[in-house]
Amino acid sequence: MASTSCPGFKAAGIAAGIKKNHDKDLGIIYSEIPATAAGVFTRNLVQAAPVVLDRKRIRSGRGQAIVVNSGNANCCTGEKGRRDAEAMARLTAQQLGLSADLVLVASTGVIGQPLPMERIQEAIPISAAALKSDGFIDFAEAILTTDTVPKAVFRRATLDSRPYCVLGMAKGAGMIRPDMATLLCFVVTDADVDAGLLQDALAQSVDGSFNRITIDGDTSTNDTALILANGVSGVQVKTRAQRDQFQAVLDAVLMELARGLVKDGEGVTKLVEIRVKGAGNARDARRVADTIAHSNLVKTAFFGEDANWGRIMAAAGRAGVALAPGHIDIFFDDLAMVVNGLGMGQAAEAKATRVLKKDGFTVTVDLKQGDASASVLTCDFSVDYVKINADYRS
Amino acid sequence: MASTSCPGFKAAGIAAGIKKNHDKDLGIIYSEIPATAAGVFTRNLVQAAPVVLDRKRIRSGRGQAIVVNSGNANCCTGEKGRRDAEAMARLTAQQLGLSADLVLVASTGVIGQPLPMERIQEAIPISAAALKSDGFIDFAEAILTTDTVPKAVFRRATLDSRPYCVLGMAKGAGMIRPDMATLLCFVVTDADVDAGLLQDALAQSVDGSFNRITIDGDTSTNDTALILANGVSGVQVKTRAQRDQFQAVLDAVLMELARGLVKDGEGVTKLVEIRVKGAGNARDARRVADTIAHSNLVKTAFFGEDANWGRIMAAAGRAGVALAPGHIDIFFDDLAMVVNGLGMGQAAEAKATRVLKKDGFTVTVDLKQGDASASVLTCDFSVDYVKINADYRS
Repeated sequence: MASTSCPGFKAAGIAAGIKKNHDKDLGIIYSEIPATAAGVFTRNLVQAAPVVLDRKRIRSGRGQAIVVNSGNANCCTGEKGRRDAEAMARLTAQQLGLSADLVLVASTGVIGQPLPMERIQEAIPISAAALKSDGFIDFAEAILTTDTVPKAVFRRATLDSRPYCVLGMAKGAGMIRPDMATLLCFVVTDADVDAGLLQDALAQSVDGSFNRITIDGDTSTNDTALILANGVSGVQVKTRAQRDQFQAVLDAVLMELARGLVKDGEGVTKLVEIRVKGAGNARDARRVADTIAHSNLVKTAFFGEDANWGRIMAAAGRAGVALAPGHIDIFFDDLAMVVNGLGMGQAAEAKATRVLKKDGFTVTVDLKQGDASASVLTCDFSVDYVKINADYRS
Repeated sequence: MASTSCPGFKAAGIAAGIKKNHDKDLGIIYSEIPATAAGVFTRNLVQAAPVVLDRKRIRSGRGQAIVVNSGNANCCTGEKGRRDAEAMARLTAQQLGLSADLVLVASTGVIGQPLPMERIQEAIPISAAALKSDGFIDFAEAILTTDTVPKAVFRRATLDSRPYCVLGMAKGAGMIRPDMATLLCFVVTDADVDAGLLQDALAQSVDGSFNRITIDGDTSTNDTALILANGVSGVQVKTRAQRDQFQAVLDAVLMELARGLVKDGEGVTKLVEIRVKGAGNARDARRVADTIAHSNLVKTAFFGEDANWGRIMAAAGRAGVALAPGHIDIFFDDLAMVVNGLGMGQAAEAKATRVLKKDGFTVTVDLKQGDASASVLTCDFSVDYVKINADYRS
């Protein structure tokens, strides 16, 4: 990953000793001038303390720094958890000479254990002192839990002939499903975007990216996507055309991050796009795609490189959508496996093995009932997923 | 398992060569006189050919034989599949000198491959010739797929001082979730029960047993529960009191079979009852219990014997039920792990390990919102589950 930066922003990531393995676990993003800010959060009713805090702060539409720890989710930690999240913001604000209201907070890791505040207290000044314009990869490393690689996506674009950039960092790995995830995503841009527009743009990008992926069907208590726009480039995003262009760039950044998350999902060996088309309406299409994408039996078959399309039919059949099994076609990439509900036999299955051996492929399910379609990105379900999650806290 | 029999019924199970491993794979149950019959079937819209056939035949309320194969689900097999299911019934009827209408059919195994009808054609006469009153364990073996042990439950009861019995056989292992399962269940009784009453009793027992268990969250295309009542005991089930007594016996048989299915679920090492109480209504209670019971993260933590109650909180929070996280209590057996949304600390977690090391335990989640409760029986999610399902067809 090339070293990346965005004008007017600095970042850092250090090891604070929150994680047992001494990896980086505390990061800060800082904008040299106050920025507009927007955020999208988990829909889980059990919400971590930093999520509760950010939801309040983001209403102002302003922000200048984000402090994040991994290794501990600060969730189900009660009143102490709320005080700890506030303290993280306050300590960061003190170091940077900001009002605490301009600092947003995120945490990820184990639920239900108190934050080791002494370590965080010591680490925040060190992290603040380490802030630098090319510190984003360090930051991306500091937010990881069971992810194996940092994820950062950088896009340079021009609007009305003037350049600006969008830089996103994310972590995922477990508790990933549509409707957000155990997902932390932080985006900075030097474009000049007002807060309302920034909020709409972020919500739309999240819906088209992170809400279209699944790893294990669990939704986290800590999902947070935050964006800061500092306007340093002087590029204004105001008109409809400007908004569309900015949206496209933001979409591309979040979609690439989302793909990166699935690819690096716990124990994942294959990336599989489930495309449902020919549905009567978009909701039905989405529901069938989600049910297939979440089926443990379908996902273990992907892991085994087994062309077991019967499990795909069975998942479609229990999606709660009125469909005609005798009309369904199923393709693995371009290869027809099922036509009108019937398997295409041994020859097709033999060819399918070639598709299934790839790192990524598309499963298309045509319901032949209408024009609606939906797509969800999923992965296989491996022995390593179970091992990782059985031993997570030990 | 003691050898079991039920007056007026015979059974057999033989190896027909449908399974690659030469295990038993074809079984017949036969009542010496025509019996009343009832059935409950999968709600999956993709339904195997024998399910379609049985649904029609069961309307008569009469039946005298059931022929079952494992190793092939005869599902997504089109017109040929329908003809094959009818042929299985016809061949069995010919051997037993019955009208084909009195023969019910079930299949379980791989979806989407044609039945090897030559082998089945050869095997049915052999199986019919092997029918004997203590052949039910052979039958219970012949209906298994990835199950490791046959499941048969026998209960003797008396009604108005006269004895009768109920004998049930089932198979499960994969594609198990509430709202039926990849479940075949066959029950015989020598009680005299009319068809309408028998149907109601079976439906109620299934709802209280098989619809309250989950292994992997997938629903099969072949789920079938059939019961034959031949009245040979002369014990009539008619009055309210008689019906209640018969229902209790049937419930006990199906519940014990259901527990047996989860215990023998693919890769299962632990049986866990998820009890949700204090819910505002029964639907909410059920929904929270189901979401916890299906969570891969919760189930892998059980496998790892990890007291990761945060995952239980997170699953409850995404169940789509209005709940107050700060009021929730969680118990592992009698041990309080969470009180008012807060963990009880290291001491409780250390004690929890003793509970988690057991083969079975109860997780109670008290929402403290009302009086409704629900219970779902689930299991852990192991490395072996993935291995079994990745390699199922190879």
